[in-house]
Amino acid sequence: MTAVDFTHDPNRRSWVTSAGSGDFPLQNLPFGVVAGADGEPRGVVRIGDTALHLSGLAASGLLTGEAQAAAEAAAGGTLNTLFALGSGPRTALRRALHALLIEGAPHQEAVAALLTPLRDVDVLLPARIGDYTDFYVGIHHARSVGALFRPDDPLLPNYKWVPIGYHGRASSVRVSSAPVIRPHGQLKAPDAPAPVLAPTRRLDFELELGVWIGPENRLGTPVRIDHAESHIAGFCLLNDWSARDVQAWEYQPLGPFLAKNFGTTVSPWVLTPEALAPFRIPFDRPEGDPAPLPYLDSPRHRASGGLDIELQVRISTARMRADGQQPHPITRSSSRHMYWTFAQLVTHHTSNGCNLQPGDLLGSGTLSGPDAGSEGSLLELSRGGTDPITLPSGETRTFLEDGDEITLSARAHRPGAATIGFGECVAVIDPAITYP
Amino acid sequence: MTAVDFTHDPNRRSWVTSAGSGDFPLQNLPFGVVAGADGEPRGVVRIGDTALHLSGLAASGLLTGEAQAAAEAAAGGTLNTLFALGSGPRTALRRALHALLIEGAPHQEAVAALLTPLRDVDVLLPARIGDYTDFYVGIHHARSVGALFRPDDPLLPNYKWVPIGYHGRASSVRVSSAPVIRPHGQLKAPDAPAPVLAPTRRLDFELELGVWIGPENRLGTPVRIDHAESHIAGFCLLNDWSARDVQAWEYQPLGPFLAKNFGTTVSPWVLTPEALAPFRIPFDRPEGDPAPLPYLDSPRHRASGGLDIELQVRISTARMRADGQQPHPITRSSSRHMYWTFAQLVTHHTSNGCNLQPGDLLGSGTLSGPDAGSEGSLLELSRGGTDPITLPSGETRTFLEDGDEITLSARAHRPGAATIGFGECVAVIDPAITYP
Repeated sequence: MTAVDFTHDPNRRSWVTSAGSGDFPLQNLPFGVVAGADGEPRGVVRIGDTALHLSGLAASGLLTGEAQAAAEAAAGGTLNTLFALGSGPRTALRRALHALLIEGAPHQEAVAALLTPLRDVDVLLPARIGDYTDFYVGIHHARSVGALFRPDDPLLPNYKWVPIGYHGRASSVRVSSAPVIRPHGQLKAPDAPAPVLAPTRRLDFELELGVWIGPENRLGTPVRIDHAESHIAGFCLLNDWSARDVQAWEYQPLGPFLAKNFGTTVSPWVLTPEALAPFRIPFDRPEGDPAPLPYLDSPRHRASGGLDIELQVRISTARMRADGQQPHPITRSSSRHMYWTFAQLVTHHTSNGCNLQPGDLLGSGTLSGPDAGSEGSLLELSRGGTDPITLPSGETRTFLEDGDEITLSARAHRPGAATIGFGECVAVIDPAITYP
Repeated sequence: MTAVDFTHDPNRRSWVTSAGSGDFPLQNLPFGVVAGADGEPRGVVRIGDTALHLSGLAASGLLTGEAQAAAEAAAGGTLNTLFALGSGPRTALRRALHALLIEGAPHQEAVAALLTPLRDVDVLLPARIGDYTDFYVGIHHARSVGALFRPDDPLLPNYKWVPIGYHGRASSVRVSSAPVIRPHGQLKAPDAPAPVLAPTRRLDFELELGVWIGPENRLGTPVRIDHAESHIAGFCLLNDWSARDVQAWEYQPLGPFLAKNFGTTVSPWVLTPEALAPFRIPFDRPEGDPAPLPYLDSPRHRASGGLDIELQVRISTARMRADGQQPHPITRSSSRHMYWTFAQLVTHHTSNGCNLQPGDLLGSGTLSGPDAGSEGSLLELSRGGTDPITLPSGETRTFLEDGDEITLSARAHRPGAATIGFGECVAVIDPAITYP
C-alpha cells in the first residue's frame, strides 16, 4: 500500500488558481493525454482546469532522477511507457510536481508556461489498451441482475469464491465525451419463433471503476496478492454500455459479446494509487461469508485492500438540455460495494499465469449498492424494465433513449484529507444507423 | 471471393527445390515473420523450406506498383501494415512472387540471395494482435460439449441463429513451438464444500482455424456479408488450450476466462485468401435448419462462402519421443464442419458497429466432425474424461499430461489443384509452477 505523506496534506494549496476547488487540487495530480492545436498527443498532468505538459517539463531541467525519467516516459502520445515504470518513478514525479505546483514554489513562471487550459485541448484516451477485462465484483448488482436472468438462482455458487470476469473489447473503448451509437443486435421475444436484427430497445449504462495496469507480469508468472497493487498504474471511471435484449439472447453459454463490445467509455484522468492513498479502507467480508482462498488473502490486504470512493450517475435527456435543466442524479453508490478488490482481481487474473501488460484495462463490474437509489444500471433502477423511473422533466425511463446523456462521476473524501475527484465519464446516445 | 487464376495452376513449379513437395509449393506463398541471427524481426514469404525476406525484395528493384507497396508494408517486424492494405496489394505481390519464383524465372540469383533456410531463423508471431475473439462454430463440438455441461440442453436455442463468440486474451497468444505451462486454477469437486487452487487436472487442446483481420471497419460501421471477406487478411491454425475443470467452475454466468487465457497457440504462416481460392465450397445448411438472418446471408455467400480444409491432430507423449515413435494421429476433421463461415463471423462481429482492426485474430471454435475420430478436443475424445483413449505406446489419456505435445496441421487439396498446407501448430505441456 502506498503511504500517506506530505503530498496529501490537506492544508497545502497550489498557486494554480483553478486547483483551489473541484476534483483536481494539488493532492490529486492525475495523468492524461491531450492534443492541442497541432493535433499531437502529449502526456500531461492535470492541476485544476489546466494540463501541465510533461514533455515540456522533461525538457525544462526542473526535474532530476526518477522524476525526470517518469516525465520523459509520459511525454509521448500514450502513457503506456510511464505505466510500465511502476510506482517508484511515478511517486518521485508526484513529489517533484507537488514541489513545483505548491504555493510559493520556485520556477513558477517556467512551469506556468507549460500549462494549457483544458478548454483549448482535446482530451484523449490515456493509453493504448492491449487487453480489456471486465469483472463482476458488485455483489448487489450480481444478485439483482441474477434474479432477473435466473429467478431461481440469482447468485451463482461460484460468486463468493471466484472473482468472476470476462474479456471485453479493447478496440471500442473510447474516452469520455465520444458519443455512443445505439447498436443493432439480434433481439428475440420469448414467444417469437425467430430473432430479428434491430436496434437495441434496452440500452443501458453500467457504473464501474477501472484500473490501468502498470508493470507487466511475464506469461506463466502469477502475481502474489501482496505484490498486486504494484501492477496498478491508476484508476478511472468506466461505463460498460450494455444492450440488455441482445445480452439475454446471446449470452449463453460463452458470456456477453455483442451486447457489450459496441462501446465502453472511460474517464480520461488516471488517478494514481498515490493520490488515493488516504482513501484506503480495510477489506472485509460479511459475517458468514467464506474467507477468500489463501492466494487471494493476506494480512496486509485485509488491513487496507479496500477503497472508499463515492460514485454518482446523472442523466440528462435531450429535452432537459433544451430546457436548460441540470443533469439529474439517479444513482449514488460507492466502491465499498466491491466484493473483491482490484488487488484480488490482479492476483486472480494472473493466477493461471496470464500476463497483464502496461495499459491493459480492468473494469470492476457494476458497483450497485444494496439500497434503492444506489443501483448502478437502469436494468436495476427500472426492475428489469418493468418500473420506469421518473425524471424532473416529467419524462420516464426504463432504458436509454436517443439523446440521453449519462455522466459518471467519483469523488474521494474523508475528514483530514483533501477531497479529490475523477472528473466525469460522459457520453450521449446517438440514434442507430440504418442497417442492414 | 478471390478468383482462381494462373497462380493456382497445379502444373507450375518453383525453382526453389524444397517447394516441390510439402505444404508450401509455389501456389501457397504464405506470409510470416522471422528473426535471424541479428534478432531483428522481418516479414517474409515462405516457399518450400525457406523464407524470402520482403525487406530485401522491396529494396531489390524487382517489384513495382502495388506489389512493391505490399512488400514494403511487410518488411517490418509485424504484418499489421500489410494486413491493413487489403487484397489488392496482397494479390499484386502474390503474382509478382509467382513470376519470380516459377521455374525459368529471371533474376533467380538475386532472389535466391534473399532466401534464408527456415532452420536458420526463429519463426515469430506474425502480427501484433489488438483483440482476439473466439467463436463456437463447430456444431458437433457445441452439441457434444453441451451434453457434458448441460445434459438436458446440449445445443442452446440461440445456436442456429447467433454465431456465438466471446472475447479471448490477446496477450497470451503465442506462436507454434512455445511451450504451454500447465495452469493453476480454482477446482471444485461437485461434493466438495469449497474449491482449491491447484494445477488443472483436465488440460485439453481445441482444434481451430484462425483468421487474421485485414482492413479495419470504423467503430459504428457494420461490414456487410458480401464485403466481409475483404476484411480477412489470412488464415492460420489455432489451439485454444482449455482447463476443463477450471472452466466448469468459473464459466457461469460470464463465460470462460482463466480456463482459456493462460495460452493460445497459432501457426506462424498466414495463408492468404488468394491461396485458398481453389478450396472454396458452397455454404449450406442441413435440411430443416433455419436460414441465416438476412444480414448473414447472400447469394454470393451461399455459392462460395465455405472452405474445404482437412484438419488433423497428433499427440506425442514424452515416452513416445524417448522411444523414437512418431506423433500419433488422434483426430481428423474438416473446416466443412463450420456451422458459420468466417465471412459470417466478420459480419456478425461488426453488426453492432464493433470495430475490427488489422492484426485482430478470430478463432473458429473447435472444429469437431460428427463421427468417432473427428473430435476436436480430448473432452470429446474421452467422453468427458470417462473413456480414455489408448495410444500406440500403450499409454492412455483422458486429458493432457506433462510432456505431451499436440500438433495441429491442415491441408487443402482437390483434383485439379495443387495441394497446400498450413504447416504445424505445435506445443508441449510444461509442468505447473510451484504456486502459491
